[in-house]
Amino acid sequence: MKRDVKAILFDVFGTVVDWRSSLIENFTQWGGAKGIDADWSLLVDAWRNAYMPSMEKVRKHPELGFATLDTLQRDSIESLAARLGIKGLQSDDYDYLTYGWHRLNPWPDSVPGLVRLKSKFIVGPLSNGNIALLVNMAKYAGLPWDVVLSAEVFKHYKPDSEVYLGAARVLGLAPHEVMLVAAHNNDLGAAKSFGLKTCFVPRPTEHGPQQKCDLRPEDDWTTIVKDINDLAARFGC
Amino acid sequence: MKRDVKAILFDVFGTVVDWRSSLIENFTQWGGAKGIDADWSLLVDAWRNAYMPSMEKVRKHPELGFATLDTLQRDSIESLAARLGIKGLQSDDYDYLTYGWHRLNPWPDSVPGLVRLKSKFIVGPLSNGNIALLVNMAKYAGLPWDVVLSAEVFKHYKPDSEVYLGAARVLGLAPHEVMLVAAHNNDLGAAKSFGLKTCFVPRPTEHGPQQKCDLRPEDDWTTIVKDINDLAARFGC
Repeated sequence: MKRDVKAILFDVFGTVVDWRSSLIENFTQWGGAKGIDADWSLLVDAWRNAYMPSMEKVRKHPELGFATLDTLQRDSIESLAARLGIKGLQSDDYDYLTYGWHRLNPWPDSVPGLVRLKSKFIVGPLSNGNIALLVNMAKYAGLPWDVVLSAEVFKHYKPDSEVYLGAARVLGLAPHEVMLVAAHNNDLGAAKSFGLKTCFVPRPTEHGPQQKCDLRPEDDWTTIVKDINDLAARFGC
Repeated sequence: MKRDVKAILFDVFGTVVDWRSSLIENFTQWGGAKGIDADWSLLVDAWRNAYMPSMEKVRKHPELGFATLDTLQRDSIESLAARLGIKGLQSDDYDYLTYGWHRLNPWPDSVPGLVRLKSKFIVGPLSNGNIALLVNMAKYAGLPWDVVLSAEVFKHYKPDSEVYLGAARVLGLAPHEVMLVAAHNNDLGAAKSFGLKTCFVPRPTEHGPQQKCDLRPEDDWTTIVKDINDLAARFGC
């Protein structure tokens, strides 16, 4: 396994950063200071649920052009807030909430593990997040990426083949020289089908204490690790 | 000046890395070991001269599709070597020479200056080099980029507007929040015309001891510095 791999790419939301806790904490603090009363957990979970259908629309209707994740999130937040009865939000507030996705905390192993892997491999995100989001997140969280690969570069969202194969192509690598690390079996399934190597890292509280999905590997992935530090150790970093 | 700028982007060939000395040294050593007799300085200069016309072809004929710099360099090297009477090169050798552009040494101030600037700004290349070239060069030379912005992302070469304005757009910034640093007046002229801030850094031996062009700033750039360390000092980094 070690011989072949030249680049290790990461799903980001859930795999590298703890989006749910970060957003809930950030919005609770901010809402408290502004006097806005809301069940922020409910909003964050509903927003996350709106994420897949909004990307599906882009994937199914390429004739409408590509829209970044920032745009999709901004488009869905106003109606979600209205549905949940959150009152008193202005346009600037919706922008603030949307940019909350740029300010996410890493899991405790993410930064040390990435620093170790970076010593031997090209490391980067391979995310549906747009470039600005991923760059701002990296600055905020201290993620030491060598390159930022985003759906925005390929004008396609995962799990479209263009993202996985495009990542290998722009790095000048064959698909089997690229490993995708993710906490999500479906993302790894797509990567595997296009010839990439795969690594499952469980994040059993990504969706909160009641998480039901992705608690364990559901296929014969190239490797399965405890966390990103564990992956670095497997690669002798 | 300091208040506005959020991202500092760099022309790379000549501005951050010393392509000419690096290539001549690398090829001389490699050619010596392989017993290939050549005037490598002549080849490197001729290759660099073939660079602009080959990109012009892509710029003028978008209907032919975008070709990466690696592809353009690989396309021109065989006929150049033949013209200069260099004998004994096989296909693998041409590949080796082409990938020489991925193994370039930084100017002495580049890495320390970038490390300092990275503490307060987003730093990245904005180069006609393709993504793989820029990522491999960064790993080789220790360039601490936050993001790798390449002509390949925008499917246009500098000085097309799409590159400069695209860089600001994907970073979620207004053009005036982005500064381009370059050793080339024409690159800065394009950046300025599209609303970016500009910084001239002289590299008077980029083209060797006989260099005639870009010895001094030829316009009223936002700032003019001695080197990248000097730019970091100006920004209080």
